Amino acid sequence: MAPVKNGRVIFNEIPSGYPDPNKTVIYDESEIIDPDTVPLNGGFIVKTLVISIDPYMRGRMRDPSVKSYSPPFPLGEPIANHAVGVVIRSENPSVKPAFQTYTILKDLTGLRILENKEGLPWSAYVGIAGMPGQTAYYAWKEYAAAKKGETVFVTAGAGPVGSAVIQIAKSEGLKVIASAGSEEKVAFLRSIGVDVAFNYKTTKTAEVLAKEGPIEIYWDNVGGESLEAALEYANKNARFLECGMISVYNTEPYPIKNLMNVVSKEIKLYGFLVFSLHEKYEEEFYREWPKRVASGEIKYTEDAKQGLKETGQAIYEVQKGLNKGKSVIVVSSE
Amino acid sequence: MAPVKNGRVIFNEIPSGYPDPNKTVIYDESEIIDPDTVPLNGGFIVKTLVISIDPYMRGRMRDPSVKSYSPPFPLGEPIANHAVGVVIRSENPSVKPAFQTYTILKDLTGLRILENKEGLPWSAYVGIAGMPGQTAYYAWKEYAAAKKGETVFVTAGAGPVGSAVIQIAKSEGLKVIASAGSEEKVAFLRSIGVDVAFNYKTTKTAEVLAKEGPIEIYWDNVGGESLEAALEYANKNARFLECGMISVYNTEPYPIKNLMNVVSKEIKLYGFLVFSLHEKYEEEFYREWPKRVASGEIKYTEDAKQGLKETGQAIYEVQKGLNKGKSVIVVSSE
Repeated sequence: MAPVKNGRVIFNEIPSGYPDPNKTVIYDESEIIDPDTVPLNGGFIVKTLVISIDPYMRGRMRDPSVKSYSPPFPLGEPIANHAVGVVIRSENPSVKPAFQTYTILKDLTGLRILENKEGLPWSAYVGIAGMPGQTAYYAWKEYAAAKKGETVFVTAGAGPVGSAVIQIAKSEGLKVIASAGSEEKVAFLRSIGVDVAFNYKTTKTAEVLAKEGPIEIYWDNVGGESLEAALEYANKNARFLECGMISVYNTEPYPIKNLMNVVSKEIKLYGFLVFSLHEKYEEEFYREWPKRVASGEIKYTEDAKQGLKETGQAIYEVQKGLNKGKSVIVVSSE
Repeated sequence: MAPVKNGRVIFNEIPSGYPDPNKTVIYDESEIIDPDTVPLNGGFIVKTLVISIDPYMRGRMRDPSVKSYSPPFPLGEPIANHAVGVVIRSENPSVKPAFQTYTILKDLTGLRILENKEGLPWSAYVGIAGMPGQTAYYAWKEYAAAKKGETVFVTAGAGPVGSAVIQIAKSEGLKVIASAGSEEKVAFLRSIGVDVAFNYKTTKTAEVLAKEGPIEIYWDNVGGESLEAALEYANKNARFLECGMISVYNTEPYPIKNLMNVVSKEIKLYGFLVFSLHEKYEEEFYREWPKRVASGEIKYTEDAKQGLKETGQAIYEVQKGLNKGKSVIVVSSE
């Protein structure tokens, strides 16, 4: 193979508010690489096939002096996220390279060899069968304490985490109330079995919960006003799975005034991060879950963009909720 | 015994904001009772010795159309709370009569026969050895998951619950940060072993926690600004024991904007009510705890007022934090 351009997505500017599709990250083709001859120094070279765009990435686009759970992206360097790649040279197959076409790695730390006996599309392994699917699967097992006949409320229900949560809840016999931000997404919610689906932009969450609640479980992907409504219409001993709060990632937080419900209703709020639950549930997940996806029992949608240069736009759309299904970047073919 | 006045404290007016010492409840002596001859209809008659004034009572002084965890006090009738009484006639000794001098009861439902082998003052059984002590003892066992060397922050540390929590934490080898609302209370905090005691009215909670944190455990009696500071300076995997939020009982709630910390630091918030933990811990508590109080290991302070007619003032002081130690009303002697 002759030398090729190694396309990369560089973190260019810390955003204030929503990321700018043209400024926050920039696509760069200045690096030239010859995959056949580049020195590997005992490692291996991976060609990225598909890479994930996730809401949490906004948190990494920050001033490095601000501490948080995930490391900040260094300015001027390629950003990184979950991805599926194929090994070009060397002995180890692997996952999780950076936002660049070719990556040279030393060992399998943080990587997983995908057998894919189920024959899923590779992109599924950064979505329903990857980190978002794990988030739903792990935390539901760990914290939901769900009982048949209970009611769960899921925000961002059409997203990859929310839609997995909904389908788990339905398979366990719960009543599901779910919100999303467009009529198209609400239709998708109905197609995966949601009992009460609504567009939070046109219908007040508090009104829906007043009518269809109280809720025993709240899966929180958004925080803010939805969290406040969930507190108000929670039943005694409700469990709140605090997965994310996209409503505060790009705008001023909505102030919550009704936390006294936590005491008076004995609500438990479980903040969690998926990687803390990996050790306990990862093997079980890969044994059970991709099979359910492959059989068609668990449905998912994807919003795939072609080429790394679409990364800035994809990041922006995910923060704005404009993506239609799990956002992925198709980097190259096998 | 000749007929006597049966003093009673009547719920007279639903307060807006702080309770009014002269209007919210009124002391009434219109009921005449002859303890020797009043018909008991198979029950028994109890003379109240001492009765407890607690912060949570504010929640019962509400419009009955508002639902909450404790039943509303009915207007025009005597209010009720934890108390110690002595049986005058009939076969059953008992606890927990209403705010009136004499009470006729049918059975022991909701009551406990106090053996008091430890010889504590009766008032201790509505304070350190009663509901507030149980609150600290039960919930710490259930939710704190405390490890030696960890740091706990306790608000309303000089109150009956807070001071019990502090002494449990010290006995388990934790570093204790605690706040209270006067210099006198801060001195009491130091006397029971608090490592970092401060007056939240003159020193910012956030500043203290920035310097002395991060905290692994937060015992919340107040909510509002203290809760916000605790979220900000919590360590990863912190446990928040949500016991009460007196800052919101009488005034507009302080809006909380930093709940995203719950997700990013994987914080767990445990809302609880003491009576939900009774079944699990009550016997253990009475076996172990009064002994530790009687031995002097566990210290407490009391703010005792003489006579039921002081009830309105005592209620007001507890809501304002003006009481010096556990507030009790001494109703009569044995």
